[in-house]
Amino acid sequence: MAHKWVYLFTEVNDAEKRMGSWDGVRSLLGGKGAGVADMTRAGLPVPPGFTITTEACNEYYANGKQFPEGMWDQVLAALKDVEQRTGKKFGDPTNPLLVSVRSGAKFSMPGMMDTVLNLGLNAQTKQGIARLTNNPRFAADAYRRFVQLFGKIVLGVAGDKFEHVMDEYKEKGGQHRQDTDLSSEELDQISERFKQIIKQDAGIEFPEDPYDQLKMAIGAVFGSWMGRRAIDYRRVNKIADNLGTAVNVQTMVFGNMGNDSATGVAFTRNPATGENILYGEYLTNAQGEDVVAGVRTPKGLDDLAQEMPAAYQEFKTYAERLEKYYKDIQDLEFTVERGKLYMLQTRTGKRTGRAAVKIAVDHVHEGLISKRDAVLRVEPAALDQLLHPSIDPKAKLSVLTTGLPASPGAASGQVVFDPDDAVNWARDGHKVILVRTETAPEDFHGMEVSQAFLTARGGMTSHAAVVARGMGKPCVAGAGEIRVDYKNKQFSANGTTVKEGEWISVDGSTGQVILGQAPLVDASMSGDFGEFMQWVDEFRTMGVRANADTPRDARVARQFGAEGIGLCRTEHMFFGGDRIDSVRQMILSGLDYKRLERELNGAQAAKDEARIAEITRQIEEPKRLYLGALDKLAGMQTEDFVGIFKEMDGYPVIIRTIDPPLHEFLPHEEAEQRDLAQKMGITLEKVQATIEQLHEFNPMLGFRGCRLGIIYPEITEMQARAIFTAAADCLKQGIKVIPEVMIPLVGDLNELTDQASKVRATAEKIKAESGQNFEYMVGTMIELPRAALLADEIAREAEFFSYGTNDLTQTTMGMSRDDAGRFLPLYVERKILKDDPFQVLDQKGVGKLLEMGVQLGRQTRPELEVGICGEHGGEPESVKFCYRTGLNYVSCSPYRVPIARLAAAQAALGDKTRDK
Amino acid sequence: MAHKWVYLFTEVNDAEKRMGSWDGVRSLLGGKGAGVADMTRAGLPVPPGFTITTEACNEYYANGKQFPEGMWDQVLAALKDVEQRTGKKFGDPTNPLLVSVRSGAKFSMPGMMDTVLNLGLNAQTKQGIARLTNNPRFAADAYRRFVQLFGKIVLGVAGDKFEHVMDEYKEKGGQHRQDTDLSSEELDQISERFKQIIKQDAGIEFPEDPYDQLKMAIGAVFGSWMGRRAIDYRRVNKIADNLGTAVNVQTMVFGNMGNDSATGVAFTRNPATGENILYGEYLTNAQGEDVVAGVRTPKGLDDLAQEMPAAYQEFKTYAERLEKYYKDIQDLEFTVERGKLYMLQTRTGKRTGRAAVKIAVDHVHEGLISKRDAVLRVEPAALDQLLHPSIDPKAKLSVLTTGLPASPGAASGQVVFDPDDAVNWARDGHKVILVRTETAPEDFHGMEVSQAFLTARGGMTSHAAVVARGMGKPCVAGAGEIRVDYKNKQFSANGTTVKEGEWISVDGSTGQVILGQAPLVDASMSGDFGEFMQWVDEFRTMGVRANADTPRDARVARQFGAEGIGLCRTEHMFFGGDRIDSVRQMILSGLDYKRLERELNGAQAAKDEARIAEITRQIEEPKRLYLGALDKLAGMQTEDFVGIFKEMDGYPVIIRTIDPPLHEFLPHEEAEQRDLAQKMGITLEKVQATIEQLHEFNPMLGFRGCRLGIIYPEITEMQARAIFTAAADCLKQGIKVIPEVMIPLVGDLNELTDQASKVRATAEKIKAESGQNFEYMVGTMIELPRAALLADEIAREAEFFSYGTNDLTQTTMGMSRDDAGRFLPLYVERKILKDDPFQVLDQKGVGKLLEMGVQLGRQTRPELEVGICGEHGGEPESVKFCYRTGLNYVSCSPYRVPIARLAAAQAALGDKTRDK
Repeated sequence: MAHKWVYLFTEVNDAEKRMGSWDGVRSLLGGKGAGVADMTRAGLPVPPGFTITTEACNEYYANGKQFPEGMWDQVLAALKDVEQRTGKKFGDPTNPLLVSVRSGAKFSMPGMMDTVLNLGLNAQTKQGIARLTNNPRFAADAYRRFVQLFGKIVLGVAGDKFEHVMDEYKEKGGQHRQDTDLSSEELDQISERFKQIIKQDAGIEFPEDPYDQLKMAIGAVFGSWMGRRAIDYRRVNKIADNLGTAVNVQTMVFGNMGNDSATGVAFTRNPATGENILYGEYLTNAQGEDVVAGVRTPKGLDDLAQEMPAAYQEFKTYAERLEKYYKDIQDLEFTVERGKLYMLQTRTGKRTGRAAVKIAVDHVHEGLISKRDAVLRVEPAALDQLLHPSIDPKAKLSVLTTGLPASPGAASGQVVFDPDDAVNWARDGHKVILVRTETAPEDFHGMEVSQAFLTARGGMTSHAAVVARGMGKPCVAGAGEIRVDYKNKQFSANGTTVKEGEWISVDGSTGQVILGQAPLVDASMSGDFGEFMQWVDEFRTMGVRANADTPRDARVARQFGAEGIGLCRTEHMFFGGDRIDSVRQMILSGLDYKRLERELNGAQAAKDEARIAEITRQIEEPKRLYLGALDKLAGMQTEDFVGIFKEMDGYPVIIRTIDPPLHEFLPHEEAEQRDLAQKMGITLEKVQATIEQLHEFNPMLGFRGCRLGIIYPEITEMQARAIFTAAADCLKQGIKVIPEVMIPLVGDLNELTDQASKVRATAEKIKAESGQNFEYMVGTMIELPRAALLADEIAREAEFFSYGTNDLTQTTMGMSRDDAGRFLPLYVERKILKDDPFQVLDQKGVGKLLEMGVQLGRQTRPELEVGICGEHGGEPESVKFCYRTGLNYVSCSPYRVPIARLAAAQAALGDKTRDK
Repeated sequence: MAHKWVYLFTEVNDAEKRMGSWDGVRSLLGGKGAGVADMTRAGLPVPPGFTITTEACNEYYANGKQFPEGMWDQVLAALKDVEQRTGKKFGDPTNPLLVSVRSGAKFSMPGMMDTVLNLGLNAQTKQGIARLTNNPRFAADAYRRFVQLFGKIVLGVAGDKFEHVMDEYKEKGGQHRQDTDLSSEELDQISERFKQIIKQDAGIEFPEDPYDQLKMAIGAVFGSWMGRRAIDYRRVNKIADNLGTAVNVQTMVFGNMGNDSATGVAFTRNPATGENILYGEYLTNAQGEDVVAGVRTPKGLDDLAQEMPAAYQEFKTYAERLEKYYKDIQDLEFTVERGKLYMLQTRTGKRTGRAAVKIAVDHVHEGLISKRDAVLRVEPAALDQLLHPSIDPKAKLSVLTTGLPASPGAASGQVVFDPDDAVNWARDGHKVILVRTETAPEDFHGMEVSQAFLTARGGMTSHAAVVARGMGKPCVAGAGEIRVDYKNKQFSANGTTVKEGEWISVDGSTGQVILGQAPLVDASMSGDFGEFMQWVDEFRTMGVRANADTPRDARVARQFGAEGIGLCRTEHMFFGGDRIDSVRQMILSGLDYKRLERELNGAQAAKDEARIAEITRQIEEPKRLYLGALDKLAGMQTEDFVGIFKEMDGYPVIIRTIDPPLHEFLPHEEAEQRDLAQKMGITLEKVQATIEQLHEFNPMLGFRGCRLGIIYPEITEMQARAIFTAAADCLKQGIKVIPEVMIPLVGDLNELTDQASKVRATAEKIKAESGQNFEYMVGTMIELPRAALLADEIAREAEFFSYGTNDLTQTTMGMSRDDAGRFLPLYVERKILKDDPFQVLDQKGVGKLLEMGVQLGRQTRPELEVGICGEHGGEPESVKFCYRTGLNYVSCSPYRVPIARLAAAQAALGDKTRDK
C-alpha cells in the first residue's frame, strides 16, 4: 500500500494507532489537525475535512519542493469523502463545496501561513453560492475576500495594495463607509481590480480552477514553513526545523451569512489572569479574519449569551468538556452559521506566567490534575513576571523610546544623571532613576539607591545590565535613540527632552521608556504562587542558592526561597560609600610595597647590608599605608559579613575572595584621578602612571582571581580575617554560620594550596583568639578549562567546587562576553550556535567540561559539594542539565531563585529538555 | 645491619651492586663521588676518601636537619680507613690528616657549596704541617686559606670582609704585594683577624676541633642543597629537588708545596669548539681555588708539558683513557704534589652546541659511539647557537647596555628610528638596525628590511620579539636603560648617545647592545653539522614543518630541512608595501557594506520597496570599494602564494585564513589616522569612529579568526581565490603544489562547515576555470578548548587539525600572554607552575586537551593529519610530547627546525623527558 499522506478528521483512530500516542498524533497531524480530529471523534460539531501530514511537508522539502508521490491522489480521495458527507461538490456551480486551508504545525507558530478561506470560489461557483443563499452580496463579498487572501497569502502580493483599493471604494465621493456598506457590484469591481493587481505583481492569471487553487494553497503552506518569519520564530522559541507543518483542508462554514451568524475565539479561562471564566470575543455576521484584523470592534462573550443564547450554551458546554478532557486551558475557535454552532479549533491555550500558576493551582484544587502535573505544566521562565513589579496592563502609556529589556521589572522615578546626585536625591526621600550614556563600577553607589537604570549604550551584558539583574532592579540598556546631556542635566529622545527631576517609568521586561509615572502591579510570593512553590519544593531534590553580595540581597534571596548563598562577591562591597578610597589606597601603596619587598629579598639574598637598610627605610611608608588600608577594609567587610550571616542563619554562605583586576577599581576620568591624587597626597602623574602600569590587553585573562591573592597574600588574609571574625561574632550571638571560602580563577592545585593555606591559618588564628569553634570549608571556583581537566588534583585541596560558567564559557569558547556582540547575534540568527551560550549553558562543550570536572573531582573526594554560580544557574534548561550532571545545587540571582526551584523540581520529575 | 650512608672510594663495586646500574651509583654518590670512586677502581692515582650519600642528605631534611642515625659513626669508621691508607691521623699534630669536603649532586650544579680545603687544621696541626713540610709559611698559608674558606662557605661570613684584610696586608706601607709575598707571621696575623671577624659575624668561636669542623662542613654541604642559588639553578635547569647532594671527604694533596707542585683543570677536548686537543689551564704552586679565583693568570697545558713533562704525560694518558672509558668529553681536575700527579675529578664536560655536534660526529668517526648515541647526546636546544650568526667569542666588545635576549643571533647595522627611514636607508644599500621604544604591526615594512631590532619596552613575547623570531632576526627587547628620542633621531643609554646612522651591534642570544660593528661568525648547515643532521633524520619518524609567511621564510625553512609549511599567516602579508592601504580600505568600506547589507535584508523581508531602493543606492559605493580592495589583495596574495609554492615544490603548505581582529590593521596614532583619512577621502572623525567601534575589551577572545570569515565571507573567498589561483598557476609550470587551507579559531563544527564550503566552492570554480586539477585539503586550527572537546564532530568536516598551542594555552589556562608578566615569572619562581607554559607546553592541562583532540578526531577520521603550529613546536620537551601523542608533524619557526628535527629523532629513539 502507498504511504498514507492524508488523514480524514474521522480517521483519527488510525493515526493514533500508527503513531502509538496522542503526542505522536500531534506530531503527524499538527496541533490544529489533531484538535479538530479529536473533537470530531468526540461528536462535537466540526465541519468535515482532512489533514495532510507533517511527513508530507518534510518529504516535500526532501523532494526538491515536489509533492510526495501519491499525496495529490489521496487529497482528491479525501475531498470525495468530504463531498459525500456534505452533499456538496468541489467546483460544482450548482452546489459548490468551499474549503478553508490552514497550516498547522505541532506547536502553534505565528509566522506560518495564515488561513485561506472560501477556496473553491470562481466566477461560476460564486453564482452558485449567490443562487443557493439567495444573497448575491454575500457571494460577491466571499469572492472578494477569497481573491484578496489568496493573492496576499498564497501569491505573496503586498497586502496594502488590496487595502488601497478597498479604501478607495469606501471613500468614494467623500463618503466614509464600512466594508459592510459596499454593494454587490462594487465588490465585484473590487475583485476584478484585485485580479489585475495579482497579474501585475505575481505575473500570473488568478487561478479559476478550484483544484489549481487547492494545489497552490497546499504548496504555499508547505513553503511558509521555511519562510523567514517562521524560521526566526523557531530559532527564538527553540523549535526544531525538521518537525514540518501539516495542512488542514476543511469545509467552509459561514459566520457572515447574516445576523444569525457569527464567528469568534475564546479561552476556557482568562489567559492573562487565570481567572476561571469563559473568556473571548466574537463578531456577528463576520468571518474569522475580521476578528483578527480589527475591522470592527469585537464583542465579549457575555453579549453572545444574550444574542444567541442556544449557541452560547452549547459552546459553553463544549468548552467545559474540552478543558476537562485535555485537563488544561483551551484556546477555541467557533463559527455560528445561521444559528448552528460549529467548532473549528481547540488547542492548549497560551497564558501569562501569572495565569499559568493560578490555573495550575485551581486545576489541582478542582481535582483535574495532580500536584506533579501542576509543577510540570508551568514554564519556569514564565515565573519571571511574577517576581518583579510590572506595569498595569490596562494603563495607557506614553512611550518615549524602546531600548533593550536588560533586567526585568518596571519602576518609576525622577530622572538623575549623576551617581552622587542619585545619592543626594534619594537621601531626600526621592525615588530616582539613573540615566547614563553607560555605567561604570564607580557609579555603583548611585545605582544602589536608584529604582532602575536607563542607558543609551551597552547590551544585555553591559555593566548596567549585569548589576541590575544582580540587584533585581529594572534596567533598559542600549536605548540608542536617547542622547544624554550631562552638562545641562537632561536627556532627549525623538524630539522630547526630559530634565533632571522629571518622572519617567522604565519597563525592563519590554525595554519601554515611558514618560511620567506608570501604574505598577506588585510582585508577591503569597497566595496561589506561594502554594505552587510549596508543591515545587516537595518534588525538588537539588539545592537552590542565590548570588548575593549584601545583607539586602541575602534577605531577598531568603524571601524567594534560596537555601544559602552560592556566590558572595566581596569586591562588590568595595564600592559602597567611601570604601573605594581605602581600596585605592590599598592598590597604590600595595604596588610600591610589593616592588620594594622584591628588592628587599634581592638585597637580602645578596647580603647587601647597605641596600637592605635603605629599602627597609623606604618600604616603611607604603607598608604602613597598605596594611592600614587593609585593616580599614577588614573592619568594613566584617560588618557586611555579619549582616549576611544573620540573614542566612543556618544556611551556607560561599564567599569568594577578590576577583577582578585591580585597574577596575581605579578611576577612568581625569577629574576623578585628580581627586584621587589629592586624597592620597600624591601627584596626578603618579596616579596615571599606576593606571597605565596596570593596563591590560585582555583583562579577562589577566592579573585577577587567585593570581592577585598569590601576589598580594595580605589581601586574602584580610578577607579571611573579616569572614572568620564575622563568623565568630555571629556564633557568639547564637547564629548558625556556615562560611565557605571560595578561591577564584584557580587553574592549578598549587594556586589553591597557596591560598587555602592562608585562609585556614587565618581561621585557626581567629578560632583561637575568639574561642569560637565555627565550622568552615575552603573550595574553589571551576572557571578555567584547565581546572575542570585537572579537577581530580584540585579536589585534593578543595572541599567544594562551584562552576563559574560565565568565565568557563568565555575561556572554553574563546569568546569575550563584552566583545561577542559583533558576531554572536548573527551566529544565533544563522544557527551556527543554537543559543547564546552566555544565556543558555553550552551543554555540548562547556557542559562536557562540567561533567568531567564533577566526575574527576568526586573520584578524589566522593563527598565533594559541587554547584554552579554563573548566570546559567537561573536558566531553566541549564538548571536541568546541572541536575542531570549531579550537582548539589545551583545558585543564581535572588530574583531567579523561584525559576531555578521550579526547573530543578521539573528535572527531578524526569522532565527532559522539551521536544520542540 | 644499619643502613649504609657512607661509601669509601674503594667500595664502588658495593654501590654498583646495590644500585644495579652506573646511573644508580651516580644518583647515590653524586657525579663527583662516582667519578673519583670509578677512577680509584681503575687504578688511577686518587687521594683516598669517602662519600656520604645523597640518601643521607634527603634523610637529613626528612629528619628536621639532623644527621641520619648511624651516619656519623660510619663517617668516623671511613675516616679510620683513610687514616690507615695514608698513614696519617685526623687531628694528630704529629702527622695530621687534612681533608677536603665537597658537595656533589648527581648533576653538576653551580650554586651548591664550594669546596672546603685543608679541613683538619688548627693551631696544633698547623705546627705539625710546618714541621713535616719544614715550611712554616706553607702551613701558615694553608691555615689562612682554611679559616677563610670555612668562614665564608661553612659559616656564611661575607667573603669581602676577609678580602679587605688580605688587601690591607698586601698594601701595607704603600706596597703592592701578591699573596705569595706575605710572610708566615703576617699570614698568622691574618688568620687571627679572620677568626675575630668570624666571631663577630657568625657569633661563634672558630672551631678548633677537626671533628667539629668536619661535622659543620658536612652540615653546610647538606644545607647548601636548599640554598637560594641552588634552588634557582634547579628551577632554571629543571632538576628535581628531591635528588639531594652527596658529600665527598678526601685526603688533601697540595699543589702549593713549591714549584714542583701545581694544580689545574682540563677538558679532554676543547669545550667551546669541540676540537680534539687536551684543553686546560693550571697554576704552579697553588691550590685549586686560586685557579678559579683568578688570583694569578693560569698557564695553558702546553706549558705543563714543558714544566713537568712526566706529570703531563701521565695526565694525558689518563685523560685519553677516561674519555674512551666514558665515551664522552671529560672535565678533569688534577694536582701535582712535589712532582706526583693526583686525579681529583672526572665528569662529563659541559660544552657549547657547536662543540657538542663536532665531538659527537668525531666520536662516531673514531668508532667510540654509534650514530644513535651521537643523536641522543646533543641537547636539541644547544643547536640554537649554530643556527644564527654569533659574535666572535674572541672579540673585545664595548657593551652599551643589556636587554632581554628576545630573538637569538647577532647582527650589526646603522641605527634608524623610523620604519620608513629603514626602508630608505636599506634601499640605498645600508644595513640598518631599527630602534624603537616598542614596535607595532604598522612598523612591519621597516622591520622587514632591518638586520635586527632593539626596543626599550616589551618582553620576550612583545610584538618585536615575536616578529623577530618568526623572521629569524636578532632582537633585543625591553632594554629599559635606553631612551629613544624620535624627534632628534637618537637614543641614549648610560650617558652615551647614539645618533641615526651610527653603527651598533645587538646580540639577541645574550641581550647585549654593543657600540660599533662587532665581528660575527656565520651559521652554516654544512660540515659536521650537516652530517649530524643527516643522522638525525635517519632516526626521525615525525615530520617537521616550518611556520613561514613569505617566500624568503620558506626558502630558509627548506634550507633548515623543513618538510613543508605548517603555518602560513596570510595576514602577515597584509603589511608589506602599500598593501596595508588596501586592507584598510577593505575594513572601512566593509563595515559600511555589511551594515547596509543587513538593512537591505531587513527591508526585503519587510517588502519595503522604497527602503530597498534607497539602500540599494547607498550600498553601491561601499560595495565597490570593498570588493575593489579585496580584488587588489587577491592579486597580491596570489603572487605571494606562487612564491611560497615554488619554494615548497612537492611539500605541503598550510595556509591560514585571516585571523587577527580587524582593529590591529588600523593605525593607533593620530598623524597616521589623518593620513589614512586623506588617502581614503573620508574625515578623520570617521576613521576614529571606526577605530572606536572596533575597539575590544579582550581582543584575544573577540571578533577574529573564522568569526571574521563568517561575517565577511568575501574575505575568505578572496583568500581562497588567491591560494587556488596560485596553485593552478604553479601546477601549470610543473610545480607540485599541496595547499592545505586552515580555518582559525573554530569552536563549533558549524563554523568550519560554513567556511570550508566557501573554500571548496572557490577551489572547484578555479579548477574549472583553469583546467588544472590540483589536490587540496581543508582543515582547522584547534586552539580553543571547545574545539578539542568536540574534535570528533569537527573531524567530520576537517581533513586536518593543527594545534595552535599559543592560543590554546591562553584559553585553557585563562592567561593572556601579553598580560601574564605581572604574575607568571613569580609563579615559575615560586614553583606554582613548573615552567612558563608559553615556552614549554603544559602537558598536564593543555596536553590533556591535545590528547583528547587527537583521539576524538581520529575516532571520526582515522587518517586525520594532526600537527602543531604554536611556538611549542620548536621546544624540545614539547616536541617529544607531540611525538608521544601521535602527531604527524610539528611546525615551528624556520630557525628552530633543526632543533625540532633533533628532538623528534630523540623522541623516536625513546628518549623520555630527562631525569633531572
